[in-house]
Amino acid sequence: MSELNRKSPESLQDRLDQVVQLLNRHRLVENLVHKQEGQHQELVEHLVHQQNLAELQRKLDELHPADVAFILESLPLEERLAIWQLVRSERDGDILLEVSDAVRETLIADMDSHEIIAAANSLDADELADLAPDLPRDVVRELMDTLDAQQRERLKSALSYDEDQVGALMDFDMVTIRDDVTLEVVIRYLRRFDELPDHTDKLFVVDTEGALKGVLPIKKLLVGSPDALVGEVMAEDPVVFDPEDDAGEAAQAFERYDLVTAPVVDAKGKLCGRLTIDEMVDYIREESEAEVLNAAGLREEEDIFASVWKSVRNRWAWLAINLCTALVASRVIGLFEGSIEKLVALAALMPIVAGVGGNSGNQTITMIVRGIATGQVQVAHGKRLLRKEVGVALFNGLFWGMVLAGVAYLLYGNLPLSVVLLSAMTLNMLLAAVMGVFIPLIRLRLGRDPALGSSVMITAITDSGGFFIFLGLATIFLL
Amino acid sequence: MSELNRKSPESLQDRLDQVVQLLNRHRLVENLVHKQEGQHQELVEHLVHQQNLAELQRKLDELHPADVAFILESLPLEERLAIWQLVRSERDGDILLEVSDAVRETLIADMDSHEIIAAANSLDADELADLAPDLPRDVVRELMDTLDAQQRERLKSALSYDEDQVGALMDFDMVTIRDDVTLEVVIRYLRRFDELPDHTDKLFVVDTEGALKGVLPIKKLLVGSPDALVGEVMAEDPVVFDPEDDAGEAAQAFERYDLVTAPVVDAKGKLCGRLTIDEMVDYIREESEAEVLNAAGLREEEDIFASVWKSVRNRWAWLAINLCTALVASRVIGLFEGSIEKLVALAALMPIVAGVGGNSGNQTITMIVRGIATGQVQVAHGKRLLRKEVGVALFNGLFWGMVLAGVAYLLYGNLPLSVVLLSAMTLNMLLAAVMGVFIPLIRLRLGRDPALGSSVMITAITDSGGFFIFLGLATIFLL
Repeated sequence: MSELNRKSPESLQDRLDQVVQLLNRHRLVENLVHKQEGQHQELVEHLVHQQNLAELQRKLDELHPADVAFILESLPLEERLAIWQLVRSERDGDILLEVSDAVRETLIADMDSHEIIAAANSLDADELADLAPDLPRDVVRELMDTLDAQQRERLKSALSYDEDQVGALMDFDMVTIRDDVTLEVVIRYLRRFDELPDHTDKLFVVDTEGALKGVLPIKKLLVGSPDALVGEVMAEDPVVFDPEDDAGEAAQAFERYDLVTAPVVDAKGKLCGRLTIDEMVDYIREESEAEVLNAAGLREEEDIFASVWKSVRNRWAWLAINLCTALVASRVIGLFEGSIEKLVALAALMPIVAGVGGNSGNQTITMIVRGIATGQVQVAHGKRLLRKEVGVALFNGLFWGMVLAGVAYLLYGNLPLSVVLLSAMTLNMLLAAVMGVFIPLIRLRLGRDPALGSSVMITAITDSGGFFIFLGLATIFLL
Repeated sequence: MSELNRKSPESLQDRLDQVVQLLNRHRLVENLVHKQEGQHQELVEHLVHQQNLAELQRKLDELHPADVAFILESLPLEERLAIWQLVRSERDGDILLEVSDAVRETLIADMDSHEIIAAANSLDADELADLAPDLPRDVVRELMDTLDAQQRERLKSALSYDEDQVGALMDFDMVTIRDDVTLEVVIRYLRRFDELPDHTDKLFVVDTEGALKGVLPIKKLLVGSPDALVGEVMAEDPVVFDPEDDAGEAAQAFERYDLVTAPVVDAKGKLCGRLTIDEMVDYIREESEAEVLNAAGLREEEDIFASVWKSVRNRWAWLAINLCTALVASRVIGLFEGSIEKLVALAALMPIVAGVGGNSGNQTITMIVRGIATGQVQVAHGKRLLRKEVGVALFNGLFWGMVLAGVAYLLYGNLPLSVVLLSAMTLNMLLAAVMGVFIPLIRLRLGRDPALGSSVMITAITDSGGFFIFLGLATIFLL
């Protein structure tokens, strides 16, 4: 159990429960007041009510914005908005940054443009850029006017990048120094700050033009000799990123080189921002969630307390695709209705061929897609990978096909039928292996995302293919 | 593109290509030498060969261990081992830590116990603990003997925790200070270090017994007044972890509170280790990969160049489960063979009912499982979630069911059949919604992992259930 406060070791769950309890007590009193009409009674209840609210508000004030965000995400809409009303307005901005997109939408819908602008005013340009897409257009325009020139410039720059680019994730909290001063001078310079930006583990060394010359880890300030020049002790070849770099690649570099922060440098070598590990961790988490959600046929993260209608919209796209592929598979079966009429066991056995092929194909394609994502698989590896996957499919097809053929023989006592089943399973698994290697590699060569919908596609092929192979072989050899 | 070296901006991919090129040139020469017999020729080739090897080795020496690991993972076994031979032995340990489990196995298999021990000697106790499970038992025993008492104690402690516990992920690189000294004294103390441990963003304040009293962010050393006492400026309520805490929860806390390092404290309040963000990032990545791999029916991460036999072993468990569920579904169909014989269109339409139900059920269960993992869904929410999911299923079932019933009517011109199809689709989607909510919540209440095999289970239910509902309704109403 993680404890934010060592003195009072409460888990996040405990804190959520406390808030909900207080909220319920508050509601109970509210109901009482509504029901009872006595003047005096009402006053007493009103006081109790106020006291509960004050306690709840105090509780919320003590919590980290991320914890308030968690509580808001864990509450159904009505309770969520009740709590949201109690949050002090100066904390609104920080909390909006922490909640998920789906929940943020519900919170912003509850605020008027005045409140939104007040909340946004406490944020930096890079944080504003994260919120902006969820805000009403006219509010964003109004907001722009309240910013000073530098902030506006930065907001515009951040908004100009795609959300998967480094430029959209960088912040502007860089502490810059020159290379011709001593560490002593740097230390004195830093003492004038009230506080260093979060995650500052290195200072950025720039020349008079603002071009990056190197980085100085602040650890060096502590262990190095104060008389040394920055230029002597700085690292001259740090990992740097371009604002147009892919955020996923940046995240991999953070992981690979164990970075905490890294400078972002434009094409001319000028320092223009900073990436921090916390943004990268969020990015990694979001990416992997998107992968899991897409694999299950959800378009995006869903507020679990969303309305039925919102959920339907989130899910319909993949359902529609699935319906189409199912319809194709159904038409393949339709081709062989005559055969099924003559040998009805085919109808019972055909889903096995399709299902096991689908599972096997998904195994192959998932591995290849992951290999491409990590950069370990290239188009040139196609032949070698194909050989391996075909080998695996051949083994699995023959082995499990034989098991299944045995079971089918026990059930139907029809040896030719069992042989057809064995052959169809092996062939469908080979088809799955070949397509599982080819589809992502072809997409890679065409410059498309190899992951998107890969599972749906391979399943469509193994379903239709499996039905076709099994019923086709049966029609030729058994009837 | 991430660039480790700003002077020569090569991407990781470029560097991989260079290494492979050098390796191929080396092999080409080797082949030439084997083919040509002339003494002089051989000598020349030998020199060229040596030169290439030296260049390759130099190239490898320049690379970050993580980059060498990436190159090793991206090469088929034979090339991988050729490169591994060229890596300087003092870097072996660091590189072994960076490669994936599957690839690590192939590298260790290529080393004798002498080499392994040499590699291990360059590592810290917490790093050794990461390697130990992959090493031969007798090597681990031999290794234990070479360690000093403190290191041995730490290694034993790290090995005593489950790999999903904080204790298995913590390191021992803590810099500790007392609270009754001034910042000035701390700064002077730090100057005696050659280097601070990686990721040091805070110092740990302990009493004479080693109990944690607070943490001092090193930023405070830089901006604070040198005369202030540590006890005055330290944070007294840091986020701390227990070695027995769940690593996933620790990772969430790192994400939530944007931590870089955090102290690990035992039940008695004694500081016993340190968690760092890089370990947490690795953990998050591995967890999300395991989720994706399991969803696709892979037991664990697979070396993409693994042998057919290894791949078969990695995949057989899920295939076997899939086969069983397919067999059950097949037997359900078997119950209705008589009906199918009479109305063969049933055979063509039944996979649609099963397939669309499966997709819909996977959407529901994925959402609930994710909500449980993030802590937002509790057993108490069951009723509310059920109401929502049933609403979504009812809408989708009726809407898409109607679309499909229309298509079926066009194909078969059988209105009662279309009505049965519509009803079966709606009922199966309701079944999927109910089970999609119940299965994970019941598992949660029983204290099991709600995620494991959830997709397989829901698909099994919607397949068998879909066939049963559709064929059952058809048998009652159509025949």
